[in-house]
Amino acid sequence: MDSIPIDSTDAPINLWWQRDDLSFHHDRLFLGQCDLSELASKVGTPAYVIRAPRVLEKLNSLHSAFDKAGLDHRIFYAIKANRSPKLLTYLASQGLCGADVCSPAELIQALSCGFPEEDISFTGTSLSSQDINTLAKFDRLRINLDSLSALERMGQASPGREIGIRVNPDIGIGYTGNEMLQYSGIEATKFGIYLDRLPEAIALAKKYDLKIVRVHFHAGCGYLNRELNQLADVIAASKAFTEALPDLRELNIGGGLGVPHTKDDTLLNLDRWAEVLADAFSGSKLKIAVEPGDFLIKDAGILLTEVTYIEQRKDIEFVGLNAGFNLAMEPAFYGLPCEPVPTYLSRNETRNFTLVGNVNEALDKWAVNHPLPAPEEGDVIALINAGGYASSMRSDHCLRGDVKEVLLLK
Amino acid sequence: MDSIPIDSTDAPINLWWQRDDLSFHHDRLFLGQCDLSELASKVGTPAYVIRAPRVLEKLNSLHSAFDKAGLDHRIFYAIKANRSPKLLTYLASQGLCGADVCSPAELIQALSCGFPEEDISFTGTSLSSQDINTLAKFDRLRINLDSLSALERMGQASPGREIGIRVNPDIGIGYTGNEMLQYSGIEATKFGIYLDRLPEAIALAKKYDLKIVRVHFHAGCGYLNRELNQLADVIAASKAFTEALPDLRELNIGGGLGVPHTKDDTLLNLDRWAEVLADAFSGSKLKIAVEPGDFLIKDAGILLTEVTYIEQRKDIEFVGLNAGFNLAMEPAFYGLPCEPVPTYLSRNETRNFTLVGNVNEALDKWAVNHPLPAPEEGDVIALINAGGYASSMRSDHCLRGDVKEVLLLK
Repeated sequence: MDSIPIDSTDAPINLWWQRDDLSFHHDRLFLGQCDLSELASKVGTPAYVIRAPRVLEKLNSLHSAFDKAGLDHRIFYAIKANRSPKLLTYLASQGLCGADVCSPAELIQALSCGFPEEDISFTGTSLSSQDINTLAKFDRLRINLDSLSALERMGQASPGREIGIRVNPDIGIGYTGNEMLQYSGIEATKFGIYLDRLPEAIALAKKYDLKIVRVHFHAGCGYLNRELNQLADVIAASKAFTEALPDLRELNIGGGLGVPHTKDDTLLNLDRWAEVLADAFSGSKLKIAVEPGDFLIKDAGILLTEVTYIEQRKDIEFVGLNAGFNLAMEPAFYGLPCEPVPTYLSRNETRNFTLVGNVNEALDKWAVNHPLPAPEEGDVIALINAGGYASSMRSDHCLRGDVKEVLLLK
Repeated sequence: MDSIPIDSTDAPINLWWQRDDLSFHHDRLFLGQCDLSELASKVGTPAYVIRAPRVLEKLNSLHSAFDKAGLDHRIFYAIKANRSPKLLTYLASQGLCGADVCSPAELIQALSCGFPEEDISFTGTSLSSQDINTLAKFDRLRINLDSLSALERMGQASPGREIGIRVNPDIGIGYTGNEMLQYSGIEATKFGIYLDRLPEAIALAKKYDLKIVRVHFHAGCGYLNRELNQLADVIAASKAFTEALPDLRELNIGGGLGVPHTKDDTLLNLDRWAEVLADAFSGSKLKIAVEPGDFLIKDAGILLTEVTYIEQRKDIEFVGLNAGFNLAMEPAFYGLPCEPVPTYLSRNETRNFTLVGNVNEALDKWAVNHPLPAPEEGDVIALINAGGYASSMRSDHCLRGDVKEVLLLK
């Protein structure tokens, strides 16, 4: 493998997404040490491919940023982003993070992949009494309760334990311009306990001898540098909660750290991010916990697909792929693209194509008017940023859900 | 069971959806002869419940409308709407319809549930060569090809057979105001062969001795009476295709027939619908085929859920359910509600609630400011119109995909 990426100015397409471990070598696209078109020809498509060391690199960069800012901290990987047992076992074995889970079944999944109970953070919503009874058995689980109702029922089922509460600081942040991804702010959302009801939460905890040792909030989804001021505001708003809780040991700021989705996005600056936290918490004795999902896994994964046909319809040239939106729902439903990238750079003329999937729905489109070297039937196209919320949300719609999954260890 | 529904003017909520087989008796909600809260207490929740005879009633009403209009016809149930093996086997055994499938795996599903090959209509998109090779083995399958590329490859794999072509009449209709559901018109879509390329399709068919005996188009999704004029326009536009194909025996107008989703929608008038078809085709010798999915199954199914908690956040009273948007995606992603309905009418005061699910996403809401008799924890809530595109599109997001399924035969 040639270690020098080609000069992106020579490339027929915009290579904003190119990085050390996802780049062209001799015109072939590599993820780590894996030649992606070769992998496709051997394993078949569609296939999710995750490069595990990329996740470790991200974990290490997060730990470094925390350390540099002098913050005592913990990282819990949000398995809802990708619960592949291979990935979870790999991460559990590395010991760089715990697991964040949001349902009893996710808890069992994390445990069964090797995460110890005490390294699992649980923050669910709309918990049934059956959920509560299951969770109550796990006395070492780091459970955060997001409603007075859950607090009361957990108190009854498991009095005397340590708990966290999920609060709602009533300020939202998120990937700019995407209302669907706003978690809190202005109109009340379904998440967390608002400040006006904190006294009731404290009274309930007292009633059942529960010790509130953590505060959890989740302010947004997919935030990048431009949203860091808002993060500071959310943290400032959380102080009204933390100051009212004398037993507090940990503040969990949830997930929401984003990755670039288009050429107009820039990488989250982790040092600036950690500074925002340090400004608020250095010297506070609180441990800071964070629960990244997409940030760790999204750009570590791609979805390998194959071109089924190329055909002009009216003034649009369509490229069909053998994968539909059911395998990665964010492009169709959240407006978050999985940009299609060729796995080798041909000498063919670059033109604009509309790339579509094999599900009988009009919204099953991967990209519109997207520049590509003219592909041929059977060519392998990688959909990038498919590591998070792709396989974990996939459906078997039209029975087009059959897909391989490969974890790369190099 | 009392056969007289309560007077809807007495009810504390708007009962626009009530009908003979979905109504309150002695204040308890029945689907057919099934007491839904009793069923929930026995089977557990969440649970999809489908009343099979409702589907037969719809099939019979469609056949009657066709017959009254004097149209030779066939009905193929679009299994992508709900591919439950129980339902498919039931329908296959009744003999009132064939099956419409859109992928090789759906073809195998329909066959394995008892539909004979010759009663299965296939119309897929973005077919891979592997798909083509699988399909080519089924020489009695009523296959419709939606691109020149698929025509060419099927010609190579299975020369001399009868085929249909999916065309694009370049006019769209759909549930008003929902752009996501527009299938054709104005901007080129990924579906079908446009008129300007029909000569090439005819030439390809000749090259491989394929006989084009069917034309298929699919104009929209969820259309009701207000869209019938547009249906007439689409059919008129299809004549340019049908008149150019001398071997034609059948015109397949796809699916798209809708059901009411809100109190402002009215039932599709099947007699008017059939008249639109008769105006265009009576005396034409063409058999008219139709492929309803939602029309047959959507209002035959509900999703039974249970109230997990009731809690005020700011000025909103939230009701949590033990089912998330992953079990029925249309409310969150398509703006097509599954209206929450209580399974028994309590004497509690009716107020407005926001009903939310148990998935950690802000968009996981079933209804906003929705009037309900104040529920209590454990109460059973039915989400109506969950028979179509709910279980078939469901995901296991947050590992909250565990759900029962009950087929009612009465």
